[in-house]
Amino acid sequence: MGSSESVPEYASPPSMRWWGWGDPAHPSALPAHALTFLRETVGVAEQPRPPVALGEVKLEPSSLSETLLAELAQILGADGLATDHEQRVLHAAGKGYPDLVRLRAGEPEGAHDAIVYPETHAQLRALLELCARRSLAVVPFGGGTSVVGGVAPLRGEHDGVLALDMARMNTILTLDRESRTASVQGGMRAPALERRLAGEGLTLGHFPQSYEYVSLGGCAATRSAGQASSGYGAIAKMVGGLRLAAPAGEIALPALPASAAGPDLRQLLVGSEGTLGVISELSLRVRTAPSERIYEGLFFESLAAGAEALRALAQEHVLPDVARLSDQAETRMSLALAGEGGLKGRLGRSYLSARGMDGGCVAIFGFEGSEQDVASRRARALELARGCGAVRVGRSPGRAWLKGRFAAPYLRDELLTHGVMVETLETAAQWSQLLAVHERVAGAIGAALEACGTPGMVMCHISHVYETGASLYFTFIARQREEDPLGQWAQVKGAASDAIVEAGATITHHHAVGRDHLPWIERELGSQGLQALRAVKEELDPTGIMNPGKLLAL
Amino acid sequence: MGSSESVPEYASPPSMRWWGWGDPAHPSALPAHALTFLRETVGVAEQPRPPVALGEVKLEPSSLSETLLAELAQILGADGLATDHEQRVLHAAGKGYPDLVRLRAGEPEGAHDAIVYPETHAQLRALLELCARRSLAVVPFGGGTSVVGGVAPLRGEHDGVLALDMARMNTILTLDRESRTASVQGGMRAPALERRLAGEGLTLGHFPQSYEYVSLGGCAATRSAGQASSGYGAIAKMVGGLRLAAPAGEIALPALPASAAGPDLRQLLVGSEGTLGVISELSLRVRTAPSERIYEGLFFESLAAGAEALRALAQEHVLPDVARLSDQAETRMSLALAGEGGLKGRLGRSYLSARGMDGGCVAIFGFEGSEQDVASRRARALELARGCGAVRVGRSPGRAWLKGRFAAPYLRDELLTHGVMVETLETAAQWSQLLAVHERVAGAIGAALEACGTPGMVMCHISHVYETGASLYFTFIARQREEDPLGQWAQVKGAASDAIVEAGATITHHHAVGRDHLPWIERELGSQGLQALRAVKEELDPTGIMNPGKLLAL
Repeated sequence: MGSSESVPEYASPPSMRWWGWGDPAHPSALPAHALTFLRETVGVAEQPRPPVALGEVKLEPSSLSETLLAELAQILGADGLATDHEQRVLHAAGKGYPDLVRLRAGEPEGAHDAIVYPETHAQLRALLELCARRSLAVVPFGGGTSVVGGVAPLRGEHDGVLALDMARMNTILTLDRESRTASVQGGMRAPALERRLAGEGLTLGHFPQSYEYVSLGGCAATRSAGQASSGYGAIAKMVGGLRLAAPAGEIALPALPASAAGPDLRQLLVGSEGTLGVISELSLRVRTAPSERIYEGLFFESLAAGAEALRALAQEHVLPDVARLSDQAETRMSLALAGEGGLKGRLGRSYLSARGMDGGCVAIFGFEGSEQDVASRRARALELARGCGAVRVGRSPGRAWLKGRFAAPYLRDELLTHGVMVETLETAAQWSQLLAVHERVAGAIGAALEACGTPGMVMCHISHVYETGASLYFTFIARQREEDPLGQWAQVKGAASDAIVEAGATITHHHAVGRDHLPWIERELGSQGLQALRAVKEELDPTGIMNPGKLLAL
Repeated sequence: MGSSESVPEYASPPSMRWWGWGDPAHPSALPAHALTFLRETVGVAEQPRPPVALGEVKLEPSSLSETLLAELAQILGADGLATDHEQRVLHAAGKGYPDLVRLRAGEPEGAHDAIVYPETHAQLRALLELCARRSLAVVPFGGGTSVVGGVAPLRGEHDGVLALDMARMNTILTLDRESRTASVQGGMRAPALERRLAGEGLTLGHFPQSYEYVSLGGCAATRSAGQASSGYGAIAKMVGGLRLAAPAGEIALPALPASAAGPDLRQLLVGSEGTLGVISELSLRVRTAPSERIYEGLFFESLAAGAEALRALAQEHVLPDVARLSDQAETRMSLALAGEGGLKGRLGRSYLSARGMDGGCVAIFGFEGSEQDVASRRARALELARGCGAVRVGRSPGRAWLKGRFAAPYLRDELLTHGVMVETLETAAQWSQLLAVHERVAGAIGAALEACGTPGMVMCHISHVYETGASLYFTFIARQREEDPLGQWAQVKGAASDAIVEAGATITHHHAVGRDHLPWIERELGSQGLQALRAVKEELDPTGIMNPGKLLAL
């Protein structure tokens, strides 16, 4: 299987639907039988509800004075800033469910006064100093793909707010083949780097669902984890060096394989979500591009049996690079949505039920590497999985997953058009607590949906696997309440988040904190832990202009 | 090869020579032919220079008032503190070269006013609050093995200074077999944990050269890396949860496999060297104890050829768990010190010179794991090594290395007795810079020794290997200058450290910063980076009592 088959190439920077996800030209992802299924289960709107026209989106006028605009232009050049309606709408929100509900209705919660596009680290520093002097809040904007309100145009106590779009800082600075590191500007998109690396027989291996649009600085700032994190590690493991532009100065940490020179400042800046400064450059570990890729499907009798297999694989260091395991609800849903031409048809219900797998759990194992590496790792992994009762169901589920790996956000747009709410949230916990967390959170989501008068479907998969535990990624689908859809969402999100922290799991494995997880962050870091981070912010951003209202907000 | 062969068991807490390293009953480690070799090369003292008697060690009397001692006793119990001469001498210094030079002469640079032994987290917190109120500096003391002045009795501007000995907080709190994590108190010694884990078929896999004495909290506080770090990772990779007692409060971070809830606070506390607080508890990832262990020797033609092999192994993920490669100088020295009965005799010069390896570089590869894992990883590793010209020389060098893996500090004591200075220092860099760093630092050390009028031997090995780079561990040996031996040391250490930072390498890969690396830390973290860490300190330790004069000192 060639590289091009699993990692599509995209023009960079790609255009993006202002009211939803992705390429405006993307074809429909919702087959007719799936819509029928949804109509029969959760219910859909009687009439499709398309988004309003771009011109109808209501924005307050920009509050920036001519003087201030001239000062910005002096730093950035005349084409280095934008205040037009389209750009302001495009930057007005991330891609979370509430963002899209508001945008489609033409009622974003606000907008940045201007969008600025620095081209160099020096411009970036000058810009932040100006913003500190002029009391302008700054929202760093990479791919704009945050699903937790991370790019919301909050100004806090400041006089204005800018979106700092990193799109022009998109260059690869150095490629050190021998050390297997690439140094890039923070605004470089993941696909652009992969394209460049592919020409050298290398790969970064970072493929979050938002891959088509994410910037690498944004990935680092939000501690993103790619779908192949079990093999390549999350972004936090890839960052070797880093340069941060902050209002009070800069921090430049050299690319090093390891160091004991005090606390790891890299890991203080990775995950800082634009609240301390902007990641202008970063050095990333790269790897030899795989010559062999095998993606395949397995069935387990239960989530417990599949989790036991993943645990054994992790603890024996033979994990596939992609390791995903759906619970029974998600497996059922995949079979239903795929239709007779999909997984269900290819496998045949009878095949699985003959093996007692009716109501079982599907897993995708994806191995990447040299032929020899894949062969030996896969042999042992499949042996361990069989020991946990796995039944192999061939490569077509793997191919189907690869084909659709970045498609879910497109599907969400279509469901919204049909009045269906679909939302995801995620966590991680140690193995000994994982099934209890799964039950508790799924139960909380289900009960909250019931309480909203919109009973729905709750499903989950494990997709990031570690020696000591794993992530849980929940999806829920329900009829969208016509009145107060945001209230409906907040009620379910709140119930799920409460259940997560009460179970001792993390409030987020890879979506970051942003604004949406703020109420639960102190529970995880403690008040003293949070104070320690705020002290760093006070040092680097004394006037509090960097991404107010996110992560470190009071 | 059984577990007991490579990991000796020790009583805990072990006794320690006050004037040097380790078990007072340890036999001589310096064979007669080695002394002859030293006499003929760098020169030795005419008469042995033993340390003074314990009673002759000069200490200022403790400055603590009776009232203060009573307040301490109220928190800790009457047996929870000590002010006697022996305990004060035992805690007066770490185990760096200058520490030993001073102690052996009976002239430590000072001593703590008292040693305190908390038993619980609550006692620890109460103690730190009292110390903050009474302006008493606190030096956290685990195994006391710092080689960078990390436990030096500095009081800064405070009225007194305590050594906070964690020896009584030495319990395993929970062992979660399923999640492969062990939660321990910060004062637990590494051998005590390994003993307990061995009974469960588990291992932590953390074996620094100071293994016999180190506390796990101390390892985390100093970012220690074990000899098997290429397989098990350094301590920073093992810490999943952590509890810090600070003067202003506490931070308790749950054990999690991963999280994107903001910056990684764990990695801010790991490496904080007692300057932010004391690590009272930590959760560590453990692994299945290996059923198979193969340690063996290889010869490479040059350091470059061996480094190329290690790089290939790391980048193909088939590294041995222990991967060490000596440069030509260290290889020559090993052969000379081992004598005819050692490596030299077993291999025979002629065997190697027939293969063009005279003047080559010895490597030790140690594989640990299941039989299957070791077999497949080793086969590929040896194949890659052969591709870089490696000649295998059997298992006896591996056995010899395992036997002597913790012996070097004992040898240092004996060399000091003979008037020979031996010191080590270490760094890490990316592969593309590694050989240049090696040459530059070795050159700087050699030149500085010459400039001191004591030309010596400089040698080095690579011992911690990563995909993007590796560590370099230098040892130098020279005649000790009778007048001002500390000035001699400082001159060489300074030259080496300057060379390291000028080459863009880290000032320390695993020895930490302590006091000795302070002059070079700002070069690595930047002034703004250092300010960010100081802001955290200000928050957690507002009166600056925690380990003044180390890491974050101005």
